[in-house]
Order: sequence, then C-alpha cells, then structure tokens
Amino acid sequence: MAVGLTTLPSLYHVSGIRLGTTAAGIRKKDRRDLVVIECVAGTRAAATFTRNRFCAAPVTVAREHLARTAPRALLVNTGFANAGTGKPGLEDARTCCAALAQQLGCQADEILPFSTGVIGERFPLERIVAGLPACLANLNENGWAEAAQGIMTTDTVPKGSSRKVRIGAHTVTVTGIAKGAGMIRPDMATMLAFVATDAAVAGDTLQACISAAVNRSFNRITVDGDTSTNDACVLLATGAAGNPAIERAEGDAYEEFLRVVTEVFTELSHAIVRDAEGATKFITIEVRGGRSEADCLEVAYTVAHSPLVKTAFFASDPNWGRILAAIGRAPIAQLDVDKVSVYLNDVCVVRNGAPDTGYTEAKGLSVMRLPEIQIGIELGAGSASARIWTSDLSHDYVRINAEYRS
Amino acid sequence: MAVGLTTLPSLYHVSGIRLGTTAAGIRKKDRRDLVVIECVAGTRAAATFTRNRFCAAPVTVAREHLARTAPRALLVNTGFANAGTGKPGLEDARTCCAALAQQLGCQADEILPFSTGVIGERFPLERIVAGLPACLANLNENGWAEAAQGIMTTDTVPKGSSRKVRIGAHTVTVTGIAKGAGMIRPDMATMLAFVATDAAVAGDTLQACISAAVNRSFNRITVDGDTSTNDACVLLATGAAGNPAIERAEGDAYEEFLRVVTEVFTELSHAIVRDAEGATKFITIEVRGGRSEADCLEVAYTVAHSPLVKTAFFASDPNWGRILAAIGRAPIAQLDVDKVSVYLNDVCVVRNGAPDTGYTEAKGLSVMRLPEIQIGIELGAGSASARIWTSDLSHDYVRINAEYRS
Repeated sequence: MAVGLTTLPSLYHVSGIRLGTTAAGIRKKDRRDLVVIECVAGTRAAATFTRNRFCAAPVTVAREHLARTAPRALLVNTGFANAGTGKPGLEDARTCCAALAQQLGCQADEILPFSTGVIGERFPLERIVAGLPACLANLNENGWAEAAQGIMTTDTVPKGSSRKVRIGAHTVTVTGIAKGAGMIRPDMATMLAFVATDAAVAGDTLQACISAAVNRSFNRITVDGDTSTNDACVLLATGAAGNPAIERAEGDAYEEFLRVVTEVFTELSHAIVRDAEGATKFITIEVRGGRSEADCLEVAYTVAHSPLVKTAFFASDPNWGRILAAIGRAPIAQLDVDKVSVYLNDVCVVRNGAPDTGYTEAKGLSVMRLPEIQIGIELGAGSASARIWTSDLSHDYVRINAEYRS
Repeated sequence: MAVGLTTLPSLYHVSGIRLGTTAAGIRKKDRRDLVVIECVAGTRAAATFTRNRFCAAPVTVAREHLARTAPRALLVNTGFANAGTGKPGLEDARTCCAALAQQLGCQADEILPFSTGVIGERFPLERIVAGLPACLANLNENGWAEAAQGIMTTDTVPKGSSRKVRIGAHTVTVTGIAKGAGMIRPDMATMLAFVATDAAVAGDTLQACISAAVNRSFNRITVDGDTSTNDACVLLATGAAGNPAIERAEGDAYEEFLRVVTEVFTELSHAIVRDAEGATKFITIEVRGGRSEADCLEVAYTVAHSPLVKTAFFASDPNWGRILAAIGRAPIAQLDVDKVSVYLNDVCVVRNGAPDTGYTEAKGLSVMRLPEIQIGIELGAGSASARIWTSDLSHDYVRINAEYRS
C-alpha cells in the first residue's frame, strides 16, 4: 500500500556503528524483532522523546541513561511497547540493559533501550535476554537494512535514508532507519528513528541539530493524531570521519551538516506517512499567509486530522467543503473567512472565501485522483507559513486497527 | 445500525405549532426534504448556532432575523448545506425566506432558514420555492414525525423526544426533533434541532434555558470531531399552555422547566450519537477528579477523538493502552500519571497509573462486547468532573463518508 515507496534505498555504512538483528520470537515467530546498534567508544548521542505523559518505561530509562553518560549500544525490541506497565515495566527495561551491558563489557547506563508494539502488557523478558547473543554474533557495519526490518511492526516496508556530503576537507556519511505507520502524531520525534553519522560533532551542537531537524520533519507529520507513548529519535555521531568537530557557532559546516541531517530525517518521516496504515494518498498541506507559524500549524493539523477530509481523499472526491469546514473550526484567535483561498495542487478551488469562478468539478477530480496531492491554504492574514504531511483514512486503516493484537 | 434506537417515540403535539413536509426533489427524488414549522403569533424563540467561522448562509440569515423580530416560521431543507457558497448563497437564503413570507402573509425577517447537506454547492432555489405550497397545504399539529423524517440526511432513523410536565397549575409539553449522524462535534448546538413548548416563558429566560440545556447535551457529544458549518438548535415557546410566564429569577418553575428541556435535549443528542455514521457502540466517557471541568472535557474529548480508541471499541478489543495513550497526550497543564485510574463499566483496568492487579483480559472483553459502554477516568487531581458521549469508528464510517455525494 505504501504510496510511492518502492525498495529500501542503499544505506551507506557509518564507520563506528555496527548493527545486529535476530528473530527472538518476542511476539511472533520467525520475524526479526530484536536489534542491537553498537557504537564505538567516544560516540556522542542526542535524542528527542515523546511528550506523551504516559511515556513508556524504555523512554524513561533511556532519558536517565543519556543524561548520565554517552551510550555504547542501543537495544530495540518490537512486539511490546512496555508502556503502561508501571514499576515492573521499568525493572524489565533495566534488566535488559544490564544483560546487554554484561555481554558487551560496559555499564548498564551505557545502554539505551527502545520498545514498540502493544501498550499495557509486560514483554517476555527471558526471550529478549535469550536473543542477545544472536544479535551480538551478528553485529556488522552493513547491518542497516536488516535492522530497518527488525524494528517494523505494522509497517509494510522497511524505511531508511542515507547521504554522503563533503564538509570542508572531509566526506561524512549520515544514515538512518525509522519505523512507524500508526499512532503517528509525533510531539518530539516519531515512533522510532535511529540516525548515525561518522562526523565529529560537538555535544551541544548535536542536540541543536537534532532539535532543528526534528522540527522540520518528524514533528511535521501526522497519520491519526495519536501521539505514541514510545516516540524516540536518536542521532549518533561517531567522529570516525576525522573532521574537526562541527561547532554550531562556526556557521558553514554546521549549516551543511544540518541540511543533510534534515534531508535524511525528512525522507524517513515521509516514508512513515507513505506507509501509514491503510494509506492510499500522500498529502502535503501548506498553509501560507498566517499571522504566526503556530496559527498555520493549527489550521494544517485541523485539516489533517478531520476524518471527513481524510475519507474524501480516500474516495478521490473533491469535496472541498469539508476542507473549508475544518479550516473554519481551527482553534486560532482570528480568521477572516473572506480572505481564505484553497488550492488542490495548482487548481484554485476557493478564492477569498467563495468558490473560484474558474473551478470545475472535473478540475478538482483530476487532482484528487493522484496518489500525491498538495493542499494549499492561503489565510491572507500575515506572512507566516507551515507545511505538514499526512495520509488519507481508508477501509484498511479501520481493518488494521480493529484487528491489531488479534 | 443505530445503537439501542428502535422506533420514534410518541411525540405530543405542541399547541401553537404546525408542521408541513414535502418531497421537493431537492437532491433526490421521492424523499421528504423540505419542512416548514409554523408558530402562532406571540411565540418566543431562542437559538444557538455553530461557532464554525465558515458558517452557512442560512445560519447568518437566521441570526440576523432572530435579532430583529420573533419568527413566524422555520424553513428547513436537506440535500444542500448552502455553506461555502459566498454572496450568491446568502441571496438564495433570503429569497427562500421572502417566498415563504409572501405565502404566509408575514415579513421575510419573520422566517428562519436552515439547511443541511453537501457543503460548497448552491441549492436548486426554484425547487425549494416550488415545494412551499405543498408544505403549507400539509401544515398540521401532528406533523412532528413526518418533519423528523423530512430533516434526515445520512441519519438511518428519525429522532424525536417528547415530555409533559406539571408546572404549577398547568401541564406543559416539550417536543423536539433533531438530525445528525456525521460531522458532529457541536460547538454551540448540533446539526439541527427544533424543540417547541406550549409553556409561556420570558424572553431572557428562554435564552438562558437553551444555553444551559445545550451545554449539558448537544455540546457534550462528538462523533468525529468535525464541527458542522450548519449547527443550529432552536427552542420555541408558544405560550398556549396559559401558564404565568416562567421567569428564571423565580426559581422552582424555571428549574423544573429547565430539567425537562434538558431531558428532551439529552435524548435527542444521544439519538444522534446512537445513529452516528457506522456506529456499533454507544460510549459514555466520564472523567472525574479533575482540577477543572475544562480539564475533564479536554481529557474526555482526546479519548473520544482518538481513531485508535474508536477502532478498538469497534473491534470489541479491550486494548486499554490506547485509552491511556490518549489521556497522556491530552492538552491539560498538569497530569500526574501515577494517580490516573481507568474503568470499563465497573471493571478497574488501570489503578494509579499501572494495570490493576485484579484485571483480566476476560473481564475487559466481557464489557467491550456490550453495545453500550462507560469509560470512567479518575484523574486524582481535584473534584471537577464531566461526561460526554461518543461512538466507535467502523468500516461503515469510512464507507459512508467515502461514498457520500456519489
């Protein structure tokens, strides 16, 4: 179903990062469900996590560990989210970290744990621990594609993105993988995204970079408005490229690095929307002429979350009245409806609050039939703008989410 | 599909109110689609309308007319919402009012127009005007049931409610009809509701009464979070019962009148949720222990709008982790997750932020299989509470909204 996604792109290895994957039988048999991402000593890490108050146990533990020390490995399981599991869930997450640390010869707080899957049930701790040796036996620099598969749940395709870029005298690589298809309205980062670079990057600069890139990518997508309890995005920098550490204050090198990281993040976040549960359309919503970026985002998300707009897109029905009704109820302080214009790709549907005189149903239909559509909304109130990405609401979304768990 | 709705209840006539209905062929043939509700001279009216900024032309006109004078008749058409139609739509609404006024021998501003149906297309003015004589020929005090059918769009059943109550020495009647099944998140009132009483009620008191009753009924339901452009709720008081005019300041009589009006509004609003597009479940969400009613409502609506919660209810799947995740992302200032408890009917699922030790999947399943379910959420933060009603998200919701118009 994934809209415009074919095979996984080639993923360059990142010197200093090795990945190992196994089928540990955590929830289903014969399915890759456990991943270890090992990073060389000296690697710096920055991360963003969900803002959902019911954050998962691994999110709490990963935050704690990251505040104390740099990680030597990331441990990811699918099948169970280990969220809503109370204190026992926290202990499970710590036990997994300790088990992996022992086998790697490091400290437990040098392990960052991540989980994704069903909320509210404890995971089979013993199967995860039992699966660790197979993951470690498997560690290699070219393990990215298998790891991309190993973190999937309702995803129909593995998701990855990779770039090489020249920074000063050095070529640096940025490679990442992500998973996610439902419960997607990241409020810090998406379900799970792991991106690594061999560039040397100063610590503060790495955190500034991930925050800026997330705000232009993962924090601009929504499938169903449901913010996950397990959202996490990690950016690792091994320094193996040998470049002078990139400093934010120094300008050009940082800008170039931020640009390429944002590109990788954006490709990964779009892949999540393209593979959204049941999606048949990839929809860009661009709101312009707002009084603030916040206003533009409110309007964009109100349209993106409207079940009536989403079902109309599924049906390829240019029922633009539903878009207008969603704009009209967006929670912003001021809206002059007589200045609002709406476009479907290049077709002007509504101009200054009323149907455009040149609009015809046939023109609207010719756009709505496309798999990739841009909704343009002009508010006529200022100079701010914002762009987000979303999907439609299909029979398969309901089927997948009514059947999940069973 | 309507959950727990069988036939239309008996609707008592209201002295001073006559209703006429016809099949004017506005959008489909042989379907009642035009209704006139005539009220005797001296009738007082109060109303609440949508807060959607893209309000429909008839909403604008009805507001104007009501501000000027008391109505002599309400004119309702289905098929087209006359919303997003710009100035021509406003002219169409005024022309209809003038045509009906001429036939009734009153002024155009004594007519209140209401429309429901597809947004963004002008309606066939000539068919509506041509249908008026048939409606007028048909006017009678027992026309409530036919009028309830005449205002339906995607509704599968007509909706009405009726009560008689003793107020002082007089028996007064309150009778109402409503329509609505999708685009339901009233932000003043629901799609369309027309309620009449023969009680004499002072003008200010009537407005106070409708506002209070709407806030406990129509403003507490949601199907899909989409606030309609055409929401309107009207309360007419003919005074034919001969009682001394009810005054808010005088206490008992007003309290009793408000109680019965709220009962009728509540029955009508529940009927809309029970008949929600594709609904298989009628869900009550009660949030208790909040710091404010506003906080409780935010939590309740976040749960009610979550597509993941709604699909789990459709599947009768006690996937309570999705409820927890929705609570965790509700936009309230403070939430102590360790104090949150969640109940499905009487079954405690989560106690103080962790799975209840007595909870079993079998217990959860026994509740989730029922057609009517209460979700109880205890926030442990204060003494405020709020209750709302909603429905599940089924295959049929997607089918109905993907096919609508076609």
